[in-house]
Amino acid sequence: MTAVLSPETLGRCRAQVQPQLRAAVDRLDPATRDVTSYHLGWTEADGTPRAAGGGKAVRPTLALLSAELAGADCSVGLPGAVAVELVHNFSLLHDDVMDHDHERRHRRTVWSLWGVPCAILTGDALQGLAQEVVLDSGSPHAAAAARCLNAATAELIRGQVADLAFERRASITLDECFDMVAGKTGSLLGASCAIGAVLTGAPPELVAALDAHGRHLGTAFQLVDDLLGIWGDPATTGKPVLADLRARKKSLPVTRALAADGSAAAELGRWYATDPAGDTEPDLHRAADLVAATGARAWAEATAEEELDRAAAVLEDLPLPPEPHADLLELGRWLTRREC
Amino acid sequence: MTAVLSPETLGRCRAQVQPQLRAAVDRLDPATRDVTSYHLGWTEADGTPRAAGGGKAVRPTLALLSAELAGADCSVGLPGAVAVELVHNFSLLHDDVMDHDHERRHRRTVWSLWGVPCAILTGDALQGLAQEVVLDSGSPHAAAAARCLNAATAELIRGQVADLAFERRASITLDECFDMVAGKTGSLLGASCAIGAVLTGAPPELVAALDAHGRHLGTAFQLVDDLLGIWGDPATTGKPVLADLRARKKSLPVTRALAADGSAAAELGRWYATDPAGDTEPDLHRAADLVAATGARAWAEATAEEELDRAAAVLEDLPLPPEPHADLLELGRWLTRREC
Repeated sequence: MTAVLSPETLGRCRAQVQPQLRAAVDRLDPATRDVTSYHLGWTEADGTPRAAGGGKAVRPTLALLSAELAGADCSVGLPGAVAVELVHNFSLLHDDVMDHDHERRHRRTVWSLWGVPCAILTGDALQGLAQEVVLDSGSPHAAAAARCLNAATAELIRGQVADLAFERRASITLDECFDMVAGKTGSLLGASCAIGAVLTGAPPELVAALDAHGRHLGTAFQLVDDLLGIWGDPATTGKPVLADLRARKKSLPVTRALAADGSAAAELGRWYATDPAGDTEPDLHRAADLVAATGARAWAEATAEEELDRAAAVLEDLPLPPEPHADLLELGRWLTRREC
Repeated sequence: MTAVLSPETLGRCRAQVQPQLRAAVDRLDPATRDVTSYHLGWTEADGTPRAAGGGKAVRPTLALLSAELAGADCSVGLPGAVAVELVHNFSLLHDDVMDHDHERRHRRTVWSLWGVPCAILTGDALQGLAQEVVLDSGSPHAAAAARCLNAATAELIRGQVADLAFERRASITLDECFDMVAGKTGSLLGASCAIGAVLTGAPPELVAALDAHGRHLGTAFQLVDDLLGIWGDPATTGKPVLADLRARKKSLPVTRALAADGSAAAELGRWYATDPAGDTEPDLHRAADLVAATGARAWAEATAEEELDRAAAVLEDLPLPPEPHADLLELGRWLTRREC
């Protein structure tokens, strides 16, 4: 199998998806379109175009590879690629409101610039637009793709509901946390890996395997993201240092740490119950050290690797075209190789 | 044509739609399901079942009549009936957040009980569930119905975006206001009147005529609702007395009044620019009198009648089954006959 550098794969796919994504966004009313352009990094808040922007486009890339893995041209996956990116951004817009986050990727969030109603409505519009793009694609498999997308969106919302409920609970189990992550991150990555194949009319077994691949990838990705949320460099993550501990997030490594035996876990548990308003920088570093001391950091790193292996394993016995198969595996490695 | 008492038609349709609506809501995760049950009036905030509740179910009734008007059994329209009710409630949940309304139909709103994130997520879930119900209906016309629903949802959001923008603008034209109403109210009533027919595979001309009927009905309904928002009895409307003036809403009658010549319009314009915090009861009654003095109250009443006539006229030359046709017209009259 040819190992392709994933930034190139990403770049190639982004070049195909961008015009279609812009065409979809152009279907919105002018006010919502402008806000979406800002949110997607295409424009500044005053409407000035930006050179950079558009994010990594991981989900659209997966959707295009998905069509190729089913033996079709990647263009068959384009409506799916646009749709998963829209669903992802619908969830980001609403998440930022719910988490009161003022910044995302070093830029002000939509609600912090234009208010909560604007962010709610823009998110609502993108959720609908995602369905519209798939349903209006003209594909004979449009309804099946819409169902795939819609099921993932429902799971994503369910994951977010669980995440919100965790904030108010003193303790959660690791299983509950994995289940929340499966909804919040796994479902849309599963749909991204499956929707291109769905649009080609691929057999259910292939679609199911691709979905499972994306779900394992999602868990691996979330574990790495959780590690970055504690030990990541703010310049890379775009979040303040130790942000997830400051927010008392019950991420996978933290949940694992809190469930551990020993004094480090007990001290972390007591600290998690304190008011974040009183946090000092040394407190946060101490909390991070406690997570590591329980073995949860090493566990998260190892589990991310295992999930990546499982993602690869579910595709092992399928007769997949070698080039997109190699691209997919390389993309997974690249996604989970982000430095702490 | 047999004139059927519309409360009976509504009751008959509600009896058919309720079990399906409950089955759809049961597909949600338990937390979201419980919040939705409360919002729909099926339970109290603590989960205790309520005898009454469920609203007028106007939109589902229209969807069932729509299938009958296309010559099919009304059960063909059921997935559409459930879906339009879910979209309606998605929009209510988000609207209450955006308008900071603490009460709806004499009951606390979801966000005021359980917070903004809960109301956002429950709304998101219902938007998705509406699509799911249609896409999973097994109808050979599911994709067309999903498109119909999705287009109406997009317009509804566009109307809400416009309404929000109006709040920050000193003046809007009557055309802009009609356009906003077409999105916010007309689109979903249009889809409600059309989606049952779409699910039967009815010809495009019939679908278009039914959609147009619903849109005219929507404008008539909004005009009556706007009149009730100023002169309605709080016991009937479920809103505080003179609520829309207190909120400085730029409703159709107010927009018409502000655009009029003369001293009443000028005085109303000056008052609309004042801070609502300083309002007294006599101020609000004076403002209501000013709207009437410009002729805008009589205009709104006459225009509602005209729109109802237009709604009837678009169906006049079609060979519709007489009974659902009579029910539809009667329902329109009933909807717009609500007392001030």
